[in-house]
Amino acid sequence: MKQKEALLKNIYRRELNEIEKKIALIFKRMKPRSLYEPSEFIMKSGGKRLRPMLTLFSAWSAGGKFSSVMNAAIAVELIHNFTLVHDDIMDNAEKRRNRLTVHNKYGLNAAILTGDNLIPIAYDYLLKDIKNNNLEIVSNFSKAIRIVCEGQSLDEDFETRKEVSIREYKEMISKKTAALLEMSCSIGAQIVTEDKTIIRKLENYGRSLGMAFQLQDDLLDLMANETKFGKVPGGDLIEGKKTFLLLNALESARGKDLKDIKLLIKKRGIAQEEVGQFREMFIRLGVVENTKKQIKLYSKKAIKNLTGMPNEEAADFLKELALELTAREN
Amino acid sequence: MKQKEALLKNIYRRELNEIEKKIALIFKRMKPRSLYEPSEFIMKSGGKRLRPMLTLFSAWSAGGKFSSVMNAAIAVELIHNFTLVHDDIMDNAEKRRNRLTVHNKYGLNAAILTGDNLIPIAYDYLLKDIKNNNLEIVSNFSKAIRIVCEGQSLDEDFETRKEVSIREYKEMISKKTAALLEMSCSIGAQIVTEDKTIIRKLENYGRSLGMAFQLQDDLLDLMANETKFGKVPGGDLIEGKKTFLLLNALESARGKDLKDIKLLIKKRGIAQEEVGQFREMFIRLGVVENTKKQIKLYSKKAIKNLTGMPNEEAADFLKELALELTAREN
Repeated sequence: MKQKEALLKNIYRRELNEIEKKIALIFKRMKPRSLYEPSEFIMKSGGKRLRPMLTLFSAWSAGGKFSSVMNAAIAVELIHNFTLVHDDIMDNAEKRRNRLTVHNKYGLNAAILTGDNLIPIAYDYLLKDIKNNNLEIVSNFSKAIRIVCEGQSLDEDFETRKEVSIREYKEMISKKTAALLEMSCSIGAQIVTEDKTIIRKLENYGRSLGMAFQLQDDLLDLMANETKFGKVPGGDLIEGKKTFLLLNALESARGKDLKDIKLLIKKRGIAQEEVGQFREMFIRLGVVENTKKQIKLYSKKAIKNLTGMPNEEAADFLKELALELTAREN
Repeated sequence: MKQKEALLKNIYRRELNEIEKKIALIFKRMKPRSLYEPSEFIMKSGGKRLRPMLTLFSAWSAGGKFSSVMNAAIAVELIHNFTLVHDDIMDNAEKRRNRLTVHNKYGLNAAILTGDNLIPIAYDYLLKDIKNNNLEIVSNFSKAIRIVCEGQSLDEDFETRKEVSIREYKEMISKKTAALLEMSCSIGAQIVTEDKTIIRKLENYGRSLGMAFQLQDDLLDLMANETKFGKVPGGDLIEGKKTFLLLNALESARGKDLKDIKLLIKKRGIAQEEVGQFREMFIRLGVVENTKKQIKLYSKKAIKNLTGMPNEEAADFLKELALELTAREN
């Protein structure tokens, strides 16, 4: 197992390097710079590049090569970054990954345009890798972008709504987060195979992984170490966001706990000093444990889809990736 | 000639009706309503529907049927409306066609998301009409969206720049306005024919028409009748926009005229009461005449491309359309 982990890390690092090299070239010499400088700024902000990696590893698992889907991988990363730029505007976020957000650095108008423009460029990259004239891939890509917008819209709705059920919350994150991971996997498969079963399995893997990933994000927001995570811990509580943890706490809390949570929702947030108290409460109520359990369930559900892949070694890596992602600390 | 005009009007009205019926159904029953109500609001705001009409008439001229490109026509209208919603945010516009702008009615976040989401939906509509698996059409569509974003970015740049040449201004409008009209025509052709010459001709027609159309818009902003145009006359001057007219005036003005124009640029606008004085100056300097001349030149250039079309009757309508558009008063 240790050996497999090390091998995965090596391959991941090698392909990440390829992705970064390609990203560094996207906007080179493109004009006007007022549009392409912010585009470079956001795209070069690093990170795990999870979505393009899923495209690469899915294609590999489906029996294809990394090189067949490298442009498609860039395409999903472009879409992801479009959502980051626009979401940051909507959330009034000042920073992302310890750097200024695009609207904060370049202004609102440049940020709107930068996000917009990443979309057609993403389609252009996707098209480069579609060799079999398969328009279904473009359709799949479009559908995911639409669903992500719908998810973001639901997330906005929830902010002002008094009550949100856990079922509704899950629907929201399945749209806002999981749909893009799902699509990252399915287009990787679609480009290299026509086997619908394989495509469907990788799609399901991506969706369940996406759910696990978002719940993990909710958990990390409360529990993570500040410097590793690059955000203020408890940021979701401070902003009064109705996360999986908060909605769970709301279900199981009684007495003073319940009163405190309701006050948080009513006041739409708490002070930074109160985060510790809420963290303690969430642990005491079993909310943290329950969230961890849910993450494991989704991770298992994701992994279950990986049987019978044309390339078993590659599928093993996707399994390893799911395990590592859901155990991550940042 | 009168008979042809009447026939064109009839066909235009009939197809406009089809377009409107289709538009009314796009967002029906789609959820969440927080996303799709503003989408309906902007898409149902009427207008000439010039871009979808160009798609229909181009396909017809290239020997195809209206019904083959009806979805593609909707696609270009969706893209046009995406640009309207986001441009209105960037311009701080309160109203459009005598109604509230989307961000004014639904808020900034809803407006950003509404615009975003129109893009993937537009691709979906386009894909419905691509029967020959021709990915070049998707690529053409993407390219136009990117160029429109670049044009809008240039337009933003010009606002804060002291000097803009007429050549630069033309480049900007060729991207911001003409690129979309060009693409509306070329995809109409691409869907129904593989004849590159025909496609190229209709593309060129659309581009030149787009230039004429934008210059006409600049002219109408100053000269049009308020109620017909639905905007305050001289709005561009009030906002200090560097339009074709202003840049031309700047070239030919001397003495007090020149001083007044430079002050307008420095102060980034004038009071509504001063519009009349500037209109008079622009007429006196021959700027209005010169703009009319340019519009005619682009219109002629557009029409020149219409020879040798598979359907000459349809091409005649495109010619008529160009003549009417460039003679329009609103």
